[in-house]
Amino acid sequence: MIKFFKDLIRLIRSKDPAIHSNLEVLVYPFFKVYIYYKIAHFLYLHKFYFLARLISEKAKKRTGIEIHPGATIGKNFFIDHGMGVVIGETAIIGDNVMIYHGVTLGGTGKEKIKRHPTIKDNVVIGAGAIVLGNIVIGEGVTIGAGAIVLKSVAPKKVVVGLYK
Amino acid sequence: MIKFFKDLIRLIRSKDPAIHSNLEVLVYPFFKVYIYYKIAHFLYLHKFYFLARLISEKAKKRTGIEIHPGATIGKNFFIDHGMGVVIGETAIIGDNVMIYHGVTLGGTGKEKIKRHPTIKDNVVIGAGAIVLGNIVIGEGVTIGAGAIVLKSVAPKKVVVGLYK
Amino acid sequence: MIKFFKDLIRLIRSKDPAIHSNLEVLVYPFFKVYIYYKIAHFLYLHKFYFLARLISEKAKKRTGIEIHPGATIGKNFFIDHGMGVVIGETAIIGDNVMIYHGVTLGGTGKEKIKRHPTIKDNVVIGAGAIVLGNIVIGEGVTIGAGAIVLKSVAPKKVVVGLYK
Repeated sequence: MIKFFKDLIRLIRSKDPAIHSNLEVLVYPFFKVYIYYKIAHFLYLHKFYFLARLISEKAKKRTGIEIHPGATIGKNFFIDHGMGVVIGETAIIGDNVMIYHGVTLGGTGKEKIKRHPTIKDNVVIGAGAIVLGNIVIGEGVTIGAGAIVLKSVAPKKVVVGLYK
Repeated sequence: MIKFFKDLIRLIRSKDPAIHSNLEVLVYPFFKVYIYYKIAHFLYLHKFYFLARLISEKAKKRTGIEIHPGATIGKNFFIDHGMGVVIGETAIIGDNVMIYHGVTLGGTGKEKIKRHPTIKDNVVIGAGAIVLGNIVIGEGVTIGAGAIVLKSVAPKKVVVGLYK
Repeated sequence: MIKFFKDLIRLIRSKDPAIHSNLEVLVYPFFKVYIYYKIAHFLYLHKFYFLARLISEKAKKRTGIEIHPGATIGKNFFIDHGMGVVIGETAIIGDNVMIYHGVTLGGTGKEKIKRHPTIKDNVVIGAGAIVLGNIVIGEGVTIGAGAIVLKSVAPKKVVVGLYK
């Protein structure tokens, strides 16, 4: 448990150059939302859907970050700022992924089961980018700020603007 | 009154595949913001502008959705997620309109009386799309995620990217 | 002190045509966030980084506007609506600048000291626009809604779409 918090604090400090002390991490939106998400995801996996949703809504109200309890998230995930982030129920996020505020990992309304993107390891997604549908964002991809991504992206690619 | 809530719950369940129970609808941002809007709009029409605004600000704080009390909204309107939505004072929205989080129905600062868009029936507006000015979005139009729309759109059209 | 509030109320009323009374200004997000920012910035300059950050986080929770306490802001600055605005630590904003909701004055992650934009006097930045890096937005520039700006802009220019 203590290790969990220590690792989380170390991760956040390593990601944001604007942080001046460990204490500052505690007011960090991602610090809060990630703890909420861990609890909500646990409840979701045990089919306490309502409670899980209640917690994720509470987290959203406190941070502006909406992570559906059903989303699957890997190690060293980080969200900077975070206001306006939406991560859908069937999104799958790999390790060492970093996303900025305003990013959507959402659905198109056309798919039924797996409706949201799969993000592979080491992906960076810039502020305001929108990634929609059951597509795969390959390892090491960089998605530019404000990009709209509607189809799968091959590993290592850099994507800007409308990609469909 | 009970019918109002029943219809609202049925509407929300029909729109979002991620909902697992009626109870979950109660924590839904749109459920809350729509009730606030109904009250604020009533007050606005009776010229209690300050009270109306106070309520819409409260709603925004709780949901991240800003609907000006003066906006006119038709039947079966639905906002998914909602964080960052801004709907201006003179916006007019028809029936069966669906909009996603981050959508703006705003002004350009150039018009004086009717400053915001008119959205006709059966329009869908994707996440992060920005629709500005006293323009008309025709019946059945689909506006893609992240689109910037600065002039009127003919019925049934699909609009993506910058449309000016 | 009283002059400060009077000027702030006058400024906000002059900027937003949807305001019906002075009282309404008090529920205005920018009114709140600007007072918080003034306090947080003062604390930041005196190296009370944690307290400063605590206050700016509180302000963000109440308004959806994230202004880093380290940002430098000139006279007659105004943010309309504001949800989703992010202004970075080393951003410098001149006089008479107006920005709309969803605007980011952020970093690219590549620069180390001055990481965020410098915005000169009389600039207008439309909803959802993203301005990244240690670049200079010249006097009187207009940045269109949803624009992505990644390099410096000469004075008086109008910028839309992806500018890199």
